[in-house]
Amino acid sequence: MKAEILSIGRELLMGELVDTNAAYIASQLPRLGFEVQWITQVGDDIDHLVEAFGRAFRRSQLVVSTGGLGPTQDDLTRESIARLMGEEMKVDPGLLANLEEIFRRRGIPMPPSNIKQATLIPSAKAIPNPRGTAPGWWVEKDGRIIVTMPGPPGEVKEMWEGWVFPRLQERFKGQVIVTRAVKTLGLTEAAVGELVSPFFGKENPYLGIYAKPDGIHLRVIARAQTEEAARELIRPVDEAIRAALEPYIWGYDDETPEQAVGALLKQHKLTLATMESCTGGLLASTITDVPGSSEYYKGGIVSYTNEVKELSGVPSSLIRKYGAISQEVAEAMAQAARDRLGADLGIGVTGVAGPSEVEGKPVGTVFTAISMNDTIRHVSSRLPARREVIKRRTVTMVLVELARLLRARPGPVG
Amino acid sequence: MKAEILSIGRELLMGELVDTNAAYIASQLPRLGFEVQWITQVGDDIDHLVEAFGRAFRRSQLVVSTGGLGPTQDDLTRESIARLMGEEMKVDPGLLANLEEIFRRRGIPMPPSNIKQATLIPSAKAIPNPRGTAPGWWVEKDGRIIVTMPGPPGEVKEMWEGWVFPRLQERFKGQVIVTRAVKTLGLTEAAVGELVSPFFGKENPYLGIYAKPDGIHLRVIARAQTEEAARELIRPVDEAIRAALEPYIWGYDDETPEQAVGALLKQHKLTLATMESCTGGLLASTITDVPGSSEYYKGGIVSYTNEVKELSGVPSSLIRKYGAISQEVAEAMAQAARDRLGADLGIGVTGVAGPSEVEGKPVGTVFTAISMNDTIRHVSSRLPARREVIKRRTVTMVLVELARLLRARPGPVG
Repeated sequence: MKAEILSIGRELLMGELVDTNAAYIASQLPRLGFEVQWITQVGDDIDHLVEAFGRAFRRSQLVVSTGGLGPTQDDLTRESIARLMGEEMKVDPGLLANLEEIFRRRGIPMPPSNIKQATLIPSAKAIPNPRGTAPGWWVEKDGRIIVTMPGPPGEVKEMWEGWVFPRLQERFKGQVIVTRAVKTLGLTEAAVGELVSPFFGKENPYLGIYAKPDGIHLRVIARAQTEEAARELIRPVDEAIRAALEPYIWGYDDETPEQAVGALLKQHKLTLATMESCTGGLLASTITDVPGSSEYYKGGIVSYTNEVKELSGVPSSLIRKYGAISQEVAEAMAQAARDRLGADLGIGVTGVAGPSEVEGKPVGTVFTAISMNDTIRHVSSRLPARREVIKRRTVTMVLVELARLLRARPGPVG
Repeated sequence: MKAEILSIGRELLMGELVDTNAAYIASQLPRLGFEVQWITQVGDDIDHLVEAFGRAFRRSQLVVSTGGLGPTQDDLTRESIARLMGEEMKVDPGLLANLEEIFRRRGIPMPPSNIKQATLIPSAKAIPNPRGTAPGWWVEKDGRIIVTMPGPPGEVKEMWEGWVFPRLQERFKGQVIVTRAVKTLGLTEAAVGELVSPFFGKENPYLGIYAKPDGIHLRVIARAQTEEAARELIRPVDEAIRAALEPYIWGYDDETPEQAVGALLKQHKLTLATMESCTGGLLASTITDVPGSSEYYKGGIVSYTNEVKELSGVPSSLIRKYGAISQEVAEAMAQAARDRLGADLGIGVTGVAGPSEVEGKPVGTVFTAISMNDTIRHVSSRLPARREVIKRRTVTMVLVELARLLRARPGPVG
């Protein structure tokens, strides 16, 4: 079955916004047996919108759009679907009551322009939006479906998971696509490719290889009548991949390095603390992106100046001798974080995020250390990149390393 | 002039990759006077590619594509352009010599499949690629241009800046598009819209309104023969917007809350320290996303447990009396950060990021405090959202508040 995605909004065409909704929906549709063949970004122009919806509706069983459901004159998604269907938009009393209730709760009068968010056409059902004022539309005609949702990614995700996905699943039973991802670090793309080469070039299951900032990912994609049958197709490939790459694997499927670290810390009943300079809090923030991280993460120090490093337990003699950007100081930071904050493990990160070199060390120089039991594990790198990339890569590097360290341990320690 | 963008690759349609190239190119084209009307993502399918290039080439003066220039059988961008133009791909001896040289330097034999990266059609010139094996194509026919580049964003950026942009600039002189953004917080989209309603619905300058996590943005877009003339068109609208919305404005154009705060702290010669719990380091990380932030940011404490809060100077009596999730503790955190890390200003953030309530306070409850001179400024909120959104919104809220506070000060203090 064919599906396509429309992302609507002038700000997309101006490059002011990166369209993450399309990638999210595209990653969901294979689970329902849909193959996405086109993704189109189009502006808030009624002729273009009618053209885009029309073309998509003619060639695909399912069209999913996001954006253009706001209250202003610019927001024309509803109008364009109504025009394409040759139907008239009418205010729905139930939707209007809901909308008025939202504004009553917010304690502000409802601007008249918001009324169009309470409209429907005869072929449309409203998709509830628990987070915003704009309900979506589920439009069904001639055996085809248009799903339209607002632009904010949080609203899209909640409406998709809570309402749209279950209904599509009910409607389109009978073919599913299952994917399995294996994430590795430590080998080049070519080396990984050679180790699993017998599985390339097949249609079902299909094996893809992708170079990502957190290493080389393999993805096996299988399609079958049922989820079980698809998993059965994947199983032998998955087993062979794991046998071939075992020491380099740090996670599976949607697992992020921080989720892998979190699961392993819980399993081993260990706690963690951090002290970071060049990553400026991104390490702590990434660790705490995982729900439940307060079970194992004690806290961290962002030592953006040497003064704060010393205040937090890094010996000033060490900074004088080796410089703040050094393996020795990374170690002392890991140790100090662990001691000061009373955790089982400590991570220390120091480096140069730019814009200019520090202590004669060039931008992109990074030292990290993990302190665990009586051992210190180092990972250092010279990252040839921009500030945000240096921060992000450093965090990924040290978390993947910690995941591999913890995965190598046999059982709970303490 | 009309332009459109094609992003090519199966991984885009599978949702495995977010397409950042399209946003990058879309943000560049207005500077050359191009209006981007369509962005299309299409898979590695020759029929779809010919269809997409054909439609784009017929309706736009300029088509820019990325992706599909690799060495494998999957990479069909060249083949599809050749088919559309009715021309034949031939190996270019100069390109082949270059390619062989790249592999010689890498010390590996060139796989035969790479040879197609050395091909051209009669209408195409090669666009040099300093970072990879795949040159781009500059295809010119019937007064229209197709620019095709490989997929990796680093290669795209370098080829665009170093080669494509200057050539397009030379070719298409005489029309520019200038934009001006005004960023507000504290009013709804509809309320902002009503205050500036006289400017909507015009073509030049065009006024757009956008709801973003950091408030409501207005964007004025003008086109003219010269940059000066375009700015002249924007000026009266900009002035009227500022007059209408002055107390709610926190920044302009591409300015982020953290950049606004950074510029104001430098201007006032003030330093900042933070203590945060529910945002888990994201506040520190956001502040340090600004190059040069080490001039004013001393550092921070991520107090993810009460133990770490107390270790860092928050009185345990206060936590016992009011709970860790309270205005009183947010204040104490702001004060402790300021005192402990020796900064002029302190920010404290405490709240419940989820997944479950804490101390009987529901997910999304957030207390922040800014300690400056003898005053404490509070901002609290109940954010009805997911973990990442609570973290991000809280950071934005407190930084926008700090920017507004600092903007209200007449001159350097300290």
